[in-house]
Amino acid sequence: MAVYTHLGAEDLERLIAEYDAGRLVSAKGIAEGVSNSNWLIETTQARYILTMYERRIELADLPFFLALLDHLSEAGCPVPRTIHDRSGAPFRMVGEKAAALIEFLPGVSPTIPDPDQARAVGSALAQIHLAAGNFAMSRPNDLGPQQTSAILHECGADALASIDPSLPDILDIATGIARNWPNDLPLSIIHSDLFPDNVLMLGDRVTGMIDFYFACTGAMAYDLAVTHAAWCFDRSGKHLIQALGAALVEGYDSVRPLNKSERNHLPLLAQGACLRFIASRAQDWLDTPADALVRRKDPMDFVHRLEFYRDKGHSAFS
Amino acid sequence: MAVYTHLGAEDLERLIAEYDAGRLVSAKGIAEGVSNSNWLIETTQARYILTMYERRIELADLPFFLALLDHLSEAGCPVPRTIHDRSGAPFRMVGEKAAALIEFLPGVSPTIPDPDQARAVGSALAQIHLAAGNFAMSRPNDLGPQQTSAILHECGADALASIDPSLPDILDIATGIARNWPNDLPLSIIHSDLFPDNVLMLGDRVTGMIDFYFACTGAMAYDLAVTHAAWCFDRSGKHLIQALGAALVEGYDSVRPLNKSERNHLPLLAQGACLRFIASRAQDWLDTPADALVRRKDPMDFVHRLEFYRDKGHSAFS
Repeated sequence: MAVYTHLGAEDLERLIAEYDAGRLVSAKGIAEGVSNSNWLIETTQARYILTMYERRIELADLPFFLALLDHLSEAGCPVPRTIHDRSGAPFRMVGEKAAALIEFLPGVSPTIPDPDQARAVGSALAQIHLAAGNFAMSRPNDLGPQQTSAILHECGADALASIDPSLPDILDIATGIARNWPNDLPLSIIHSDLFPDNVLMLGDRVTGMIDFYFACTGAMAYDLAVTHAAWCFDRSGKHLIQALGAALVEGYDSVRPLNKSERNHLPLLAQGACLRFIASRAQDWLDTPADALVRRKDPMDFVHRLEFYRDKGHSAFS
Repeated sequence: MAVYTHLGAEDLERLIAEYDAGRLVSAKGIAEGVSNSNWLIETTQARYILTMYERRIELADLPFFLALLDHLSEAGCPVPRTIHDRSGAPFRMVGEKAAALIEFLPGVSPTIPDPDQARAVGSALAQIHLAAGNFAMSRPNDLGPQQTSAILHECGADALASIDPSLPDILDIATGIARNWPNDLPLSIIHSDLFPDNVLMLGDRVTGMIDFYFACTGAMAYDLAVTHAAWCFDRSGKHLIQALGAALVEGYDSVRPLNKSERNHLPLLAQGACLRFIASRAQDWLDTPADALVRRKDPMDFVHRLEFYRDKGHSAFS
């Protein structure tokens, strides 16, 4: 949530002139994206989101992410398309950083979704899984359970205990999840980070799915499990809102029916999803000084969810 | 530059429903405003800026600031008007914080203004001074040279020296500026913080003057001097760009001719303007830990400008 780079009006005007996108009328740095800077741009033609990529790691993956947006958008999914510059390039370098101009989509992110909204999100997720089936590119998932288990073991029990005395218990659990992980579930390109922040809605209609910067090749049912863990718990993070969870899975299943193995594995996949957020949050927590001005996300939120899925996962998905 | 308060889609929808402003279509937290949170809101009717006031101190002044926007906008100045709610109120409380819905204006802030832009800004500044002449409310200036001199003396020579060894020299200079300050210049309501950030332009046209949260009753020529100090120096902050300064004053004078005393006092008024930014920046610098994530603005930028106005102020304004 920040704008890391200063782009002056003149810089923006020069950049926009490289696109067939009209003349600049307004530009506001927006508080979205964790590792990117974003501007809401208005030109004489339309509105756009300008994203500047701040992390080097993403640069190599940018052609994948941006082509995926185009592919899904062309297939009719509510995903913003990439605006290509006059030479056809999907992104441009501004100094040493890459920047992309992306379609602006209306809608707001629900904070407290209702079952109709969860159902719509489930359907939209299934829709992108189906549409991505014939996408030509692939990208390995570097945040699967093996990797996130490794991240947690690298943090080590002592460091994890400094966050919460009970957190080191996660190490054995992580090893178990990684060991039991299924390898035969149907794959596609998955979003793998579909928190409510990344969905724009107008009422019960999904108008935009955004921030595909964790998208990768992966099990479609795992993506549904990520979304379940991200959307369907109450504020305490300890209690599933059963009606939300049921609606999400129902919405998904109505567009792309889950096979038996996918359905049976949902509780474990959901544990793997929690593990991923525990690992990345624990790492961020340990990397961020306690007095820094950025709010650290508490890894324990997802420890509670993981406990829930271990105890009651089968009833949650039945 | 931040969004300090989380307002969810449902909160925003509820708030917008209190206005005759259509239904919410989009809301983006924007990285503008130092002590406020701001959202760029789109409804089925129009676009708006929603400002939430984070500092208690501003609350008592809010009726003044918001009525001023309406007064200036009605007089045809490029200033956003306040949207009043269905009961006619210019702001509403959201929990313990005040929030106002304000007209969205197009335009971008020039980083490197050119003389035509400076001339337009001078004219627009004169226009608001004239239009504010019959504004019924007033607000004392609590950042005049007496007050800013007092702020610097309260910081003390030792603390100032910790910022820069030469900074304590400012104490005697401040006393001198406050002692010589003229009390007989023509008054109006002044913006008193018209940095380029606070001006929206399309080409050479001023489309918006924003952020009137330092507006107060004061000498109009002082406001011109603030704008001169804020707009007309090169990046080093040491050298006036003569053509910019001349165009700014010319633009102002063409709409509201300066009287002889105002013109003669411009070098001193400009020193007072610099003093104000030195004082507020020194205070912020000393209040902000060196390792905090917010960028501290260097008070020395305006020490250099003040030195310039002491040495060459008369030639700058001749």
